[in-house]
Amino acid sequence: MKKMNIAVLTSGGDAPGMNAAIRAVARTGIFYGLKIMGVKKGYEGLINGEIFEMSLSSVADIIHRGGTILQTARSKEFTTREGREKALSMMKIFGIQGLVVIGGDGSFRGARDLSGMGAHVIGIPGTIDNDIPFCDYTIGFDTAVNTVVEAIGRIRDTTSSHNRANIIEVMGRNSGDISLYAGLAGGAESIIIPEVDASVEDVCKRIMHGRNRGKLHSIIILAEGVGGAFEMAKAIEEKISVETRVTILGHVQRGGSPTAFDRILASRLGAKAVELLMEGQTSKMVGQYQNEIKDFDFDKVLASKKEFSSEIYSLARILSI
Amino acid sequence: MKKMNIAVLTSGGDAPGMNAAIRAVARTGIFYGLKIMGVKKGYEGLINGEIFEMSLSSVADIIHRGGTILQTARSKEFTTREGREKALSMMKIFGIQGLVVIGGDGSFRGARDLSGMGAHVIGIPGTIDNDIPFCDYTIGFDTAVNTVVEAIGRIRDTTSSHNRANIIEVMGRNSGDISLYAGLAGGAESIIIPEVDASVEDVCKRIMHGRNRGKLHSIIILAEGVGGAFEMAKAIEEKISVETRVTILGHVQRGGSPTAFDRILASRLGAKAVELLMEGQTSKMVGQYQNEIKDFDFDKVLASKKEFSSEIYSLARILSI
Amino acid sequence: MKKMNIAVLTSGGDAPGMNAAIRAVARTGIFYGLKIMGVKKGYEGLINGEIFEMSLSSVADIIHRGGTILQTARSKEFTTREGREKALSMMKIFGIQGLVVIGGDGSFRGARDLSGMGAHVIGIPGTIDNDIPFCDYTIGFDTAVNTVVEAIGRIRDTTSSHNRANIIEVMGRNSGDISLYAGLAGGAESIIIPEVDASVEDVCKRIMHGRNRGKLHSIIILAEGVGGAFEMAKAIEEKISVETRVTILGHVQRGGSPTAFDRILASRLGAKAVELLMEGQTSKMVGQYQNEIKDFDFDKVLASKKEFSSEIYSLARILSI
Amino acid sequence: MKKMNIAVLTSGGDAPGMNAAIRAVARTGIFYGLKIMGVKKGYEGLINGEIFEMSLSSVADIIHRGGTILQTARSKEFTTREGREKALSMMKIFGIQGLVVIGGDGSFRGARDLSGMGAHVIGIPGTIDNDIPFCDYTIGFDTAVNTVVEAIGRIRDTTSSHNRANIIEVMGRNSGDISLYAGLAGGAESIIIPEVDASVEDVCKRIMHGRNRGKLHSIIILAEGVGGAFEMAKAIEEKISVETRVTILGHVQRGGSPTAFDRILASRLGAKAVELLMEGQTSKMVGQYQNEIKDFDFDKVLASKKEFSSEIYSLARILSI
Repeated sequence: MKKMNIAVLTSGGDAPGMNAAIRAVARTGIFYGLKIMGVKKGYEGLINGEIFEMSLSSVADIIHRGGTILQTARSKEFTTREGREKALSMMKIFGIQGLVVIGGDGSFRGARDLSGMGAHVIGIPGTIDNDIPFCDYTIGFDTAVNTVVEAIGRIRDTTSSHNRANIIEVMGRNSGDISLYAGLAGGAESIIIPEVDASVEDVCKRIMHGRNRGKLHSIIILAEGVGGAFEMAKAIEEKISVETRVTILGHVQRGGSPTAFDRILASRLGAKAVELLMEGQTSKMVGQYQNEIKDFDFDKVLASKKEFSSEIYSLARILSI
Repeated sequence: MKKMNIAVLTSGGDAPGMNAAIRAVARTGIFYGLKIMGVKKGYEGLINGEIFEMSLSSVADIIHRGGTILQTARSKEFTTREGREKALSMMKIFGIQGLVVIGGDGSFRGARDLSGMGAHVIGIPGTIDNDIPFCDYTIGFDTAVNTVVEAIGRIRDTTSSHNRANIIEVMGRNSGDISLYAGLAGGAESIIIPEVDASVEDVCKRIMHGRNRGKLHSIIILAEGVGGAFEMAKAIEEKISVETRVTILGHVQRGGSPTAFDRILASRLGAKAVELLMEGQTSKMVGQYQNEIKDFDFDKVLASKKEFSSEIYSLARILSI
Repeated sequence: MKKMNIAVLTSGGDAPGMNAAIRAVARTGIFYGLKIMGVKKGYEGLINGEIFEMSLSSVADIIHRGGTILQTARSKEFTTREGREKALSMMKIFGIQGLVVIGGDGSFRGARDLSGMGAHVIGIPGTIDNDIPFCDYTIGFDTAVNTVVEAIGRIRDTTSSHNRANIIEVMGRNSGDISLYAGLAGGAESIIIPEVDASVEDVCKRIMHGRNRGKLHSIIILAEGVGGAFEMAKAIEEKISVETRVTILGHVQRGGSPTAFDRILASRLGAKAVELLMEGQTSKMVGQYQNEIKDFDFDKVLASKKEFSSEIYSLARILSI
Repeated sequence: MKKMNIAVLTSGGDAPGMNAAIRAVARTGIFYGLKIMGVKKGYEGLINGEIFEMSLSSVADIIHRGGTILQTARSKEFTTREGREKALSMMKIFGIQGLVVIGGDGSFRGARDLSGMGAHVIGIPGTIDNDIPFCDYTIGFDTAVNTVVEAIGRIRDTTSSHNRANIIEVMGRNSGDISLYAGLAGGAESIIIPEVDASVEDVCKRIMHGRNRGKLHSIIILAEGVGGAFEMAKAIEEKISVETRVTILGHVQRGGSPTAFDRILASRLGAKAVELLMEGQTSKMVGQYQNEIKDFDFDKVLASKKEFSSEIYSLARILSI
């Protein structure tokens, strides 16, 4: 195991649990006698040298906080060869021998490129979208799902009082996982996601079916990536004359104190990332896969696609009849 | 104190704590040996005779539930003389000698009209809007404010990570109270409400002021009644180049388990309403005013306007500098 | 209005919302152009000179945090004349012309003594116990009540599954207010508080009464000041053979993010305290009384006793039948 | 796939998510055209014939509720051969051809015995203790861990304000998993569990270590199975003069609305149990193992012991330095 200087950054959209991962990187590193540095504002801050040394206290009282103390940003400059060379040069200036990147697939692409230029980089999947292959769950997903489930619960109260339908638009551009898991856990009547074709007729049929057996609420979860919440509401009102309201949950889903699950996942992955760097590894993602902490080449990860769980989709349909 | 048959209904928009009020009406009535009836779907259900006798168990395990087990609806028919006469006739058929109406000012107007036609009616202020005079707080307001404050907390996490501004649109057509209280409690940088003129320039100045002293977040609370969240976001981005996101909280604010405050308020008002009816009173609202449970003539309530608290507005501005 | 240097400290048991009060003192003072100092560890820190100047940023991002950033301690030395003279001398050294003390009645006694020696001192009622006269509510009480209500909800789930009785011991040595309000809001079957005599026989009768009408849970709230939770459980099991479990909530009740209510109350009282000092006032408590922000002489406050609300006690008994 | 009549019961200690499992059994069964029956009060109710047919509506609006609508009880009679024969006979009377048992290892032992006598029985691991082998997690564990983590957060607020140590006793007679996971996620300074020897000296060393680097809180998580919280508090105070408080969380940990994770796990396992019975299988447990839904013979499950995660234990120690 090699003594080395390690830096950590967060990149892309923030996710609850990123702070727990930062804490784990810092404390594990310090435990092994390493020097740990924090990079502010993702790759942008790496290019600009917004880098500071971290102590045990730098990460005190952050495990329960949403967001990321290192902030995050998208960097156009880093997508260019020149930008990445500046970043590499800045890593040398600060004596950074290993880099931990916490983010999603876009961030991993940058991390792989940096690896290809000689840097030692390990990625940690931190995104609420759960769209990374070879991960049971990404950091932040469990918290986001619970946030949506709580919102469904609140809306169910009021929608039952008025006997209305309610469309809730949930985050997820390409991945319907937040919608799918929250819809199942929240007992939503319909779940509309990019992965599965759906028709307004089917939604209407499920609403009427529920009404006919005395249900007071009809909740439709709609992934952001499908879109058209207001149009769908109008279509439902026209077809079956059921008053239909729309809620756009928006960035509420990104924040909040991380769940225990996300804190533990983030802690384990952060520690593992440091150990991999100390073993001399690079261009890999650490992930919890089949309930074990493992590592996978960025090449493999970036060439694959997270599989959609049709079992859970079918189950959600069966259980909300 | 007169033995009598009392019915209870909820009307207008639902609010957390309405169930606690229904429970208090039912159990207090039964305690005094009265017959208590529940009316479904507000005045509409009264006209249609959707009326059932309540026992102690009808209201078991509802004190903590959002929404209203009696459901609520708006009734066009009840706004007509004929509709109200049908309602009165139905009250006679069911032997209803006193009626408790839980709702907002629109519901009280209907209740006063019914009183004018000879019915004994007492109103309980149940609305998240806090727009009823002679009430410190309406039932549901405290819960709604806490829901918004929690959402502000979540958004602050993510907005700090990205150094963005965030506009949160909050319920309140005519009243800015939810915005005002939640904005103060959530530490929002700007609060824009129907009661006070505001300019985009002032909002921008406050954002820049905060940035200049190192603040990572700028949260703007915007009451629904003012509107124009997306336009304001665009204006901010144009004027000061700060990325600005919009969240529309929507009906999430109406639901959720009521806070202790709302449950206690609702319990006290429900019990008081029954006692007033037993004393032979009518056409009155019960309210917690200056921290005491009191009653006020509907005429007085409906002729007044809830005063806006400019002290709290100024305080919120001072404390978020 | 006088320009002056103001210090703020927290004393006695901590309460959620104390940070919001500190923030309000600091920001209001700075808004008026005053110099504001924070004193660590209550009177002990005042004696020892643990005093630092506060800026706008000293109180950034604390409005939502439980506990007190200034910490609190009990000081034996301050109860002596010598101790208080040291404190006074330290105030002169640091140029402190006005002092804000956030705490309970013990802290106010110290504050009055200090006033008597020439210091300008204003008190803010910060204690979860709600045992201060001339206050509708003390800072922290609303949060503590909601914490207990949430715990009651959780215990109700499990106690219903097993058809058991459950005794929950709640904070409050001399005051039963947390028990009373949480018991009413949580729908507890019995509430046992220092202010009212209660017998095990009455508790047993209410349990049997509930069982006979099909209730699955019996929750007994017991104020710490009454004590004897385990003995009572044994007595219930002996008398009516109902399995009875005990939960001691303990310090969980002191923590947690303050509710909107506590944050707003604390903000208003903090601002008012600064204004009173600027007006040259001393030896007074600020409080929300009859829903208005007012001030009262320490002498009057300390000579009075918070009145017990027998109305709420009776109501809780009626509603849990 | 065989058409059949299936009954479901919950047994042993209740756990959040049991209702979601009951709902999944009922709705999956009805979806496949089966007759589904609910058994009240576990094996006791099976013996006594407390059995009723379930419809889609029997399980409406329960997915989010803690506890179990079927109630649970421990049955002495069922531990005898005679008791089990009565149960078997009652199953025949009601035409029950398959039985789903939701509970822990004690319940599975009974289920295996019943299988041995000819009944078709499938078990679902429902217990907050996470002490069942061949399960990544048992139903209820995730919720219980989050409940403890929230309590740790609250206690951290107040313990920081007073610079105290705090011992929190957490459920778990034989298994330290709740303590371990909650301790890691809550950032506890020490975690004392049945699986690992610990000394008061080590706890004291960690407290002093934290203090010396400026930490304001020291939280010690102690599993119920180790016991001796009050003795440990006394020992700490004697050895290092740090004021130490004790909290016994108790049955609060069993209740509460289940997390999304527990609801999804319970839903998937409930559906799988029905499918296994339809395939003619018996004497098996369904579990999520290595993140997949699988089944295992009761014999294998009951002959094994859940492995303790020494990786997580070590990690918790490293991260709380």
